[in-house]
Amino acid sequence: MTNQVPDNHPRAASLRQRYAIAAHAKTGLVAETGTISHGRGEAFDYLLGEETPEPVKEHIKQAAALLLQAKHPVISINGNAAVLAGQYFSELSKAIPAKLEVNVFYGRTQERESMIAEFLKQYGANDVLGINPEARVPNLHSARGSVDKEGIAKADVVLVPLEDGDRTEALIAWGKKVISIDLNPLSRTARKSTINICDNITRAIPLMTAYAKELKGYAPEINKLADSIDNDKATARVLRFMRERLQKLEDELEK
Amino acid sequence: MTNQVPDNHPRAASLRQRYAIAAHAKTGLVAETGTISHGRGEAFDYLLGEETPEPVKEHIKQAAALLLQAKHPVISINGNAAVLAGQYFSELSKAIPAKLEVNVFYGRTQERESMIAEFLKQYGANDVLGINPEARVPNLHSARGSVDKEGIAKADVVLVPLEDGDRTEALIAWGKKVISIDLNPLSRTARKSTINICDNITRAIPLMTAYAKELKGYAPEINKLADSIDNDKATARVLRFMRERLQKLEDELEK
Repeated sequence: MTNQVPDNHPRAASLRQRYAIAAHAKTGLVAETGTISHGRGEAFDYLLGEETPEPVKEHIKQAAALLLQAKHPVISINGNAAVLAGQYFSELSKAIPAKLEVNVFYGRTQERESMIAEFLKQYGANDVLGINPEARVPNLHSARGSVDKEGIAKADVVLVPLEDGDRTEALIAWGKKVISIDLNPLSRTARKSTINICDNITRAIPLMTAYAKELKGYAPEINKLADSIDNDKATARVLRFMRERLQKLEDELEK
Repeated sequence: MTNQVPDNHPRAASLRQRYAIAAHAKTGLVAETGTISHGRGEAFDYLLGEETPEPVKEHIKQAAALLLQAKHPVISINGNAAVLAGQYFSELSKAIPAKLEVNVFYGRTQERESMIAEFLKQYGANDVLGINPEARVPNLHSARGSVDKEGIAKADVVLVPLEDGDRTEALIAWGKKVISIDLNPLSRTARKSTINICDNITRAIPLMTAYAKELKGYAPEINKLADSIDNDKATARVLRFMRERLQKLEDELEK
């Protein structure tokens, strides 16, 4: 395996992300099954054509509005999210502003929490919560239920990139609004969250930051966007987008 | 992470495969980026509903016919294939009969080749080729070009589960007929092979063995099936199947 991907490779961005995840499976930043999750994301991104679909841009804008509207917005970060988009999350947290909290499902140790926090700080994150956290998500057992009392425990809106279904449901049941980023529009996370963004985080987060900067201070526009959120409708639009792509490819084969 | 998946879990088979791949990433049987490939497979299998689609059963039967018709059929096995379906490949190789050859892209060392061969032998494989092979696939550089002179080099039909695009194209250019098994119907492997099976190998291989046993000795039926292979048509049918599944899910959301 090589980390050298030529710039002119048609799928250079995707391959570079793959090698970054594989490399950090070795450093321990990425969890044991984090590489497998990344592969699932690659496959769904392939179906999108590795571009943000037009309808998803609207969902990203709605999510930016929801974060700006929040009293205590928190961005939850796991190993994969840090490796793929640490810098972008750091920039988004400043633009909103929102707190960053380390959130790890598998192999949660204080060493890994600190490793992820340090990784984010190299991209300019000032303060990272979730190190040895003491609060608990109600009705969620195991290490996945640990949250920071100054972070997710207090939050009204939580952005969870690459989250699992159980935790998403438990956060919703706890009264939080949840913005998920999941390339699988059919996953439990995507279906149960307040709004799911079906996009690669390396494209979605910079776009969310740009929208947040554009919207900031315009309360009526922010409220209008946040009020227009309809996750079932959003998911249906994404499924239609994928279906139309498959139809086009099918037509080409049957020519 | 736990290896204990309760039998009544709706996705038990998929989770068990995931944990087997993660465990063998540690033993070294699965390559560094083999876990990521597995994740891509999981995602596409999810789109199929984790069942063999009706149209794919016909493609599996055509593939069985092609193997039975061959003078020198060879089944190529990498780390993921061995971990997920070692026993099934061993059974298929006896039913045809076809030779088994270890085929590794990443981290090809004699130690890994032997490890995969030993793993197959525990499932009753008698003879496994591809250990320190001396022949080369023409125009394919690096370790991926190494093949056994008694195996793939001599073969007229090669079954390549979980193959990469470059190697598939090179084998076709070398005059081999290639049966690929790739859950991504749009991959270069799937598009360039003689016939692609869009299915999980843990379902496709036992079914292929059953068809081989059923067809064996019936030359006219074997020839008719082998002659009816049309990979573009096969791919279009699979895309239509996926598209109709998405349509159904979309309709449910828009109700």
